[in-house]
Amino acid sequence: MRVLITAGGTSEKIDNVRSITNHSTGRLGCLIAEKFLNRQVTVDYVTTAQAKHPVENKYLHSYEIASTQELTQQLQQLLQKNQYSAVIHSMAVSDFTPAQTFSQENFLEEINHLFKEKNRPLDKEDLAQLTTTTTSDEKKISSDTEQLYLVLEKTPKVIQLIKQIQPETLLVGFKLLVDVSKQSLIATARESMKNNQADYILANDLAKITEEQHIGYFIDRKGQILGEKHTKEDLAILIAETILSQNASSYRR
Amino acid sequence: MRVLITAGGTSEKIDNVRSITNHSTGRLGCLIAEKFLNRQVTVDYVTTAQAKHPVENKYLHSYEIASTQELTQQLQQLLQKNQYSAVIHSMAVSDFTPAQTFSQENFLEEINHLFKEKNRPLDKEDLAQLTTTTTSDEKKISSDTEQLYLVLEKTPKVIQLIKQIQPETLLVGFKLLVDVSKQSLIATARESMKNNQADYILANDLAKITEEQHIGYFIDRKGQILGEKHTKEDLAILIAETILSQNASSYRR
Repeated sequence: MRVLITAGGTSEKIDNVRSITNHSTGRLGCLIAEKFLNRQVTVDYVTTAQAKHPVENKYLHSYEIASTQELTQQLQQLLQKNQYSAVIHSMAVSDFTPAQTFSQENFLEEINHLFKEKNRPLDKEDLAQLTTTTTSDEKKISSDTEQLYLVLEKTPKVIQLIKQIQPETLLVGFKLLVDVSKQSLIATARESMKNNQADYILANDLAKITEEQHIGYFIDRKGQILGEKHTKEDLAILIAETILSQNASSYRR
Repeated sequence: MRVLITAGGTSEKIDNVRSITNHSTGRLGCLIAEKFLNRQVTVDYVTTAQAKHPVENKYLHSYEIASTQELTQQLQQLLQKNQYSAVIHSMAVSDFTPAQTFSQENFLEEINHLFKEKNRPLDKEDLAQLTTTTTSDEKKISSDTEQLYLVLEKTPKVIQLIKQIQPETLLVGFKLLVDVSKQSLIATARESMKNNQADYILANDLAKITEEQHIGYFIDRKGQILGEKHTKEDLAILIAETILSQNASSYRR
């Protein structure tokens, strides 16, 4: 049996010295990996330099990435090479990546130029022009301006790659919201399940995660809550045991 | 003898799950601290959770911060409490902090509204209105938009605090540029020395820093290059020895 686990948070470069980083300690992903390693399951572990790594183990293969683009390439390569019983995608992936940075002066110039040229309210296509016609290849953005305008563009949904390449694998997705009702968290998780063809979603709320506590709801394809756990350890056990028992029953069939 | 050393890179929150981070491993600051600790100098060490920390030592007092604001508060507190022979400010401090985030839709609405209201090319004051009149208290920015517009505002210059509170201390500043000529690097470092009332500046270029190599120029108040070193270890020795000998000579006086 072989599983693929992602953990930690991606970061997207603004310039050579600055990035936008998604915080994620990788601690839950790390615990999940340990549960599989304890059962002698081969684990391909995709993580970041900053995240917590599982202790070395002959069943563990680690791969470090930084950006969403590197993550995409690494997953494509692994998914094309190995057959996975399950993919547990706990990594916090950047939804946006910096496309363009303007000093306040540049930004005024560009936007005033656009308005003069169009002579009407601007629309989305006009804004797109802003990021494609101007060039920014600064190695380190000068701090010689009062404001910076950073335009970020959506990254492709990495999770959707997984079932595209391996429709048969069991996909566990993660949905993190911040300070919402349980109802709205579960509803969003169910939607995410459909959009990404996940088999399970771990739904959790940052406002309910502390050093000692991590409240999570593990939801199956029918949208039912398989379990509610209150610590990373219990969540890791629930996720690993669910996958392990699914795998065992698929062998029996 | 007591010194204050800062190391690592600050990060500025965009929302509860994302930050803009200045990359800095803190390795050079860590080596500098070790040189002082080896000479039984008390070191107050201000750093970040991600950066490399010196090994525990009875002369070492560590303080962790994340944002530029936290750094400012921590330095104010320490500088008011303790008298330092030197302050070695190697931390990479964010020049900008997120002031406002707009979805593409919001941004269009706001900017079109501004143009309609002013009916002339916009200026800096108009843009300031953009960040003060609109409210953004989103806990996690929704990814349900094609583009995000992030407006960043300049942070106060933390380094300038140091001599304001302790005019007598020896201040070592750091200037990092990316892929410039040696001449332009030295010129910028000299300017930074004047603006920040530093006594020494370590000027370095990210393009000349690799795993094994770290080229740096150590410049004194007169703008003279006291030394050029090619490794972090040699830079750390040069900086610590310069401060230690200055301190010894000031005792003899």
